[in-house]
Amino acid sequence: MTKLQLALDGTLADSLRILEQIRRYIDIAEIGTPLILREGVRALHVVRERFPDLPLLADFKIMDAGKEEAAIAFEAGASIVTVMGFAQDATLSGVVTAAAHYGGEVMVDLMQYPDPAKRIHECMAMGCDYYCVHTAHDVRRRDSPVEMLRSLRFAMPDAALAVAGGINLNSIDAVVSVHPAVIVVGSAITRADDPAAIARTLSDRIKGDA
Amino acid sequence: MTKLQLALDGTLADSLRILEQIRRYIDIAEIGTPLILREGVRALHVVRERFPDLPLLADFKIMDAGKEEAAIAFEAGASIVTVMGFAQDATLSGVVTAAAHYGGEVMVDLMQYPDPAKRIHECMAMGCDYYCVHTAHDVRRRDSPVEMLRSLRFAMPDAALAVAGGINLNSIDAVVSVHPAVIVVGSAITRADDPAAIARTLSDRIKGDA
Repeated sequence: MTKLQLALDGTLADSLRILEQIRRYIDIAEIGTPLILREGVRALHVVRERFPDLPLLADFKIMDAGKEEAAIAFEAGASIVTVMGFAQDATLSGVVTAAAHYGGEVMVDLMQYPDPAKRIHECMAMGCDYYCVHTAHDVRRRDSPVEMLRSLRFAMPDAALAVAGGINLNSIDAVVSVHPAVIVVGSAITRADDPAAIARTLSDRIKGDA
Repeated sequence: MTKLQLALDGTLADSLRILEQIRRYIDIAEIGTPLILREGVRALHVVRERFPDLPLLADFKIMDAGKEEAAIAFEAGASIVTVMGFAQDATLSGVVTAAAHYGGEVMVDLMQYPDPAKRIHECMAMGCDYYCVHTAHDVRRRDSPVEMLRSLRFAMPDAALAVAGGINLNSIDAVVSVHPAVIVVGSAITRADDPAAIARTLSDRIKGDA
C-alpha cells in the first residue's frame, strides 16, 4: 500500500496547525530540512509529543558522520532518516547501523545522482529501506520526478521507491500508477486554502477510493 | 593570509567552553552540521551573542531551496554558509543571491564531486567565494584532502580554496605550503587535552611564526 508523506517546511507553529487538520489523511510526517535548520531536533520532539503515533521522517540529507547524525534523529523520535545517495558508502553504512540500533529506517535521497538504478542496488545491499526520486525545489518548474520514477520502476519492480518534487492533484494519478512505496507531498497541501480537502483527495486517489 | 577555521561538532556547551579558550587563535568558527541538527540556528545566535566579532560559518551543506535556506543562516548571524557542489546550479545561484542580500559569503563543499576543478570554475562564475576540498569524516582514516588540494592549486592558482578533513599537527605544514584561503581544523583542537596549546601551535604554523 502506497503511503502519503506530508513534507513540513514552514514554521513549527504552522506545521502543528496543519497536522491537526490533516493527520487522519497522511501516513508519515516529514520534518523538512528548513524546519530542522531553524529548530534543530526540537521540531521532532514537539511533533512527536503532540502526535505520539505518527511516523516521523527527519529530512537530515546526511552527507557525512552517518552513524552520529542518524543517531541524533532517532534519539529525537524520528522513525526514518534521509541520507544522500552520493554520500560515501561508509556514511550510508553508518546510517544503516544507527537505524538498526534504534529500530528506525533509512531513506536514500537520489537527488542529483547520475545513475540512480545502480546506486539503489548498492544501497539495497547495504540494507537501506527507501529510495527517493527527488526533484529539487529550485528546479520544480522545469523538472518532474515522474519520468525517472517510471523508468526506475521498470528497472526494479520490487524496490521501495519514494518520490518527491512538486507533486499535486494534477500529477498524483500518474505517480500512483507507478506504485511507489511513498509519495511525498508538500506545498500542494501546506499552501492550499483548504489543506484538509486537498489531503483527503490525495489520500483517496492513493488508496483508490476516488 | 590563510585563515584558521575551527569546526565545532560537539554540544553547544562544550563548543562555548572551547571557544573561550581558543578565540584568539582562530579566524572563523564553524557551527558544524551535527550542532545545527541538534540546536538549529539557536547555536548561531548563542555563539554570535557571546563572540560578537567572531566570523561564523554555518555548515548547512545546502542541497536545495538555496535562497531560503541560506537566508535562515544569514538571518541568524552567519557570515558564511556552505552549499554542496553537486547541488543544482539554481540552488547555488539562490545561495549567492541570499549572500549578496545579507552581505555574507558562500563556501562550496566539493565533497564527492567527481570533477572539482570544473565545478570550481562554474561556481566562480556564479559568484561563490570559497571552494572547500573536503574529505568525509567517515573515511578520514583512508583519504587525505592534501593531494587533491595540491592538484587543484596547480590548476587554479588564484581560487580561494579551503580544506577540511582530519587536519592536525602532522599534516598542517603540507597544507600550509599549498596556500589555501581557509584551513578547517576540528577534532585536532576540540578533542585535544589542551585545545589552546594546539590551536596556538596551528595558528603559528599558519601565520609563519613557528
